[in-house]
Amino acid sequence: MLNRTYTEMLKEKDLIFEIFQYARQLAAEIGRDQVYDFSLGNPSVPAPECVNQTITDLVSSMDPLALHGYSPGLGIPEVKADIVRDLNQRYGSSYSPANLLMTAGAAGALAHALRAVSNPGEEIITFAPCFSEYKPYVEGAGLKLTILPADTESFQINFQALTDSLNENVAAVLINSPNNPSGIVYSTDTVRRLASILEEKEKEYGHPIYLISDEPYRDILFKGVDGPYIANLYRNTLTCYSYSKSLSLPGERIGYLAVNPDCAMGDRIIELCPQISRTTGHNGAPALFQRTVALTAGQFADLPVYEENMELLYQTLTEYGYRCVKPGGTFYMFPRSLEPDSIAFCKYAREKYHLMLVPGDIFGCPGHFRIAYCVPTDRVKAALPIFKALAQDYAGC
Amino acid sequence: MLNRTYTEMLKEKDLIFEIFQYARQLAAEIGRDQVYDFSLGNPSVPAPECVNQTITDLVSSMDPLALHGYSPGLGIPEVKADIVRDLNQRYGSSYSPANLLMTAGAAGALAHALRAVSNPGEEIITFAPCFSEYKPYVEGAGLKLTILPADTESFQINFQALTDSLNENVAAVLINSPNNPSGIVYSTDTVRRLASILEEKEKEYGHPIYLISDEPYRDILFKGVDGPYIANLYRNTLTCYSYSKSLSLPGERIGYLAVNPDCAMGDRIIELCPQISRTTGHNGAPALFQRTVALTAGQFADLPVYEENMELLYQTLTEYGYRCVKPGGTFYMFPRSLEPDSIAFCKYAREKYHLMLVPGDIFGCPGHFRIAYCVPTDRVKAALPIFKALAQDYAGC
Repeated sequence: MLNRTYTEMLKEKDLIFEIFQYARQLAAEIGRDQVYDFSLGNPSVPAPECVNQTITDLVSSMDPLALHGYSPGLGIPEVKADIVRDLNQRYGSSYSPANLLMTAGAAGALAHALRAVSNPGEEIITFAPCFSEYKPYVEGAGLKLTILPADTESFQINFQALTDSLNENVAAVLINSPNNPSGIVYSTDTVRRLASILEEKEKEYGHPIYLISDEPYRDILFKGVDGPYIANLYRNTLTCYSYSKSLSLPGERIGYLAVNPDCAMGDRIIELCPQISRTTGHNGAPALFQRTVALTAGQFADLPVYEENMELLYQTLTEYGYRCVKPGGTFYMFPRSLEPDSIAFCKYAREKYHLMLVPGDIFGCPGHFRIAYCVPTDRVKAALPIFKALAQDYAGC
Repeated sequence: MLNRTYTEMLKEKDLIFEIFQYARQLAAEIGRDQVYDFSLGNPSVPAPECVNQTITDLVSSMDPLALHGYSPGLGIPEVKADIVRDLNQRYGSSYSPANLLMTAGAAGALAHALRAVSNPGEEIITFAPCFSEYKPYVEGAGLKLTILPADTESFQINFQALTDSLNENVAAVLINSPNNPSGIVYSTDTVRRLASILEEKEKEYGHPIYLISDEPYRDILFKGVDGPYIANLYRNTLTCYSYSKSLSLPGERIGYLAVNPDCAMGDRIIELCPQISRTTGHNGAPALFQRTVALTAGQFADLPVYEENMELLYQTLTEYGYRCVKPGGTFYMFPRSLEPDSIAFCKYAREKYHLMLVPGDIFGCPGHFRIAYCVPTDRVKAALPIFKALAQDYAGC
């Protein structure tokens, strides 16, 4: 009969998508201008011109057999050479092409990283608030996901919860900085402290605890924010990257897994990846886009617009009485909801004001809500009076 | 510690790749003309011009945000509409876009099909000779693969073995016609007989037995060959297609899963697919290539050259004394080896004549060897005297 696990998953509602659908339907009924949709984390700035130019150049100049041909399981060697050159230049790292696996986005990279460093039944630890897809990613690899409670004062790491929870069965810790949904960036201090705890526990347990660092927002880092390159601070780091946000290419499924050159059994981890691909149906990243991201390495979409939106929202919303930790990157912010029940709060905003917000509950952090401000700045401006009216409704509660 | 299953898989040698590597090294040493490489199933004809033209048109005319944006989990609706229109026109089928999941190649389609219609521990039956990757595909989904012995006289289905093996625990039968490695196409009679056996067993067991039809070579069908559209002959068919061969786009990872409109619980199967994607890291097929294959629907690479190569090889090799069932499609043929040990035979051909052949053992069918004649026709011609000399070495054995 049909698969029971996936059938069971159908019962969990995809709340973000429901809100987005509701917004779309409403926009069709009452007009787009009357709906304030901050539900989806979809880039609002186009891919930079160099992307389409590179695609056009590739199809007009390269032998189509070579261009569209099978890429090696680990990725096209010259692509990986270009990418590590750019990485090493920016972060002072010392990757070689052999440390890289080209993947279908960060989801593909995480699917490989999680499976390589674990055995079924083992545990993965992550921190709230976290991306809601971590649960299926981790459980789909046959592993158990533990989401530790947030430090809601700073959205840095809740170290007490971490030390209380680490145990021999933990294969890896999964982090996401800059963070979806909070927009928070882990500071050098945070990462150093995390590294030192993990190194101590590695000695105690006699085996590596890998750090899987999910970094699709790495290049949306706001001015002056302390956001270290995480693999530089912890040896056993597997970095998962996607070009979805930095080049605004979410539909093209292109990213990579970079295994720190000093990582314990790092060569073996990379060697396992093509075997993992054989079992998951991931047979390489799209060849044209491998070449495109290599040839545009170091170039970005117009990312500063996200910081402009953030400043506008942050300054105004805190003025209106919202409490929010200031984001250091991404295109998200994660204020406290104005009533304890954030699902009820988001429903109220949606129904009364056509303002689409996502309750923190689905990120493992109730009492907050996510604003995805990857929208045109004039839509942010248009929404400000709405946020004000919403705050006034709750004033004195 | 690192994953034991994938580590174990490293011990199985990838013989095809080893032969290919050996050929490459040899070519560097003694010159390309001295090596006769029939090891890899990689298209030898380029993508048709309409592919690159379509890509250029898309990047120059479409809003980049829409072009490169996230595609819905099941694929872009207008893409699916174009594809089913073409399918229905060619095969008289009645697919609607809702029956389709766009995937990263046939591997992605198989990963979804296998997981949707089964529960861990269940059995999948396939027939030798078969694609060597079926084992990791099936076992990676937590299932058991049973490879039934070939009918080596015709390479149609060994029905005795099938009726002996069917049991209540069988979730699906997996077929591949036109077949890699034999090049054989299942006839209307074969598929009808298969359908009738499965329908009878479905009644007996009281549950569907799905037919997963892996069809990356569907459009490389030789003149006059009886090759029915399989889903038309069995209700519970899930068709897995790839554009890798028909449009020579193997590196771009684009294909689809089509669930027969009359398939038992077909809507639910499609509904499960995005849930499966969430657990395997398959987050949609590349958007640009979804649009490209839709806009070039019904167009193909120069596929008739494969038939030309086949005729040349088949006529000449049978003249030289090789015994071979004549292929009806693909770019493979699968003659008997000239000694019972096909591994030894291929090694001899490789070492004495620099002729690269793949032993049938890895396709579950020892005593045969695969010729992948997706090479320029002049390379086929150049190899004919080599095949002759090889046959002469064995004459009188």
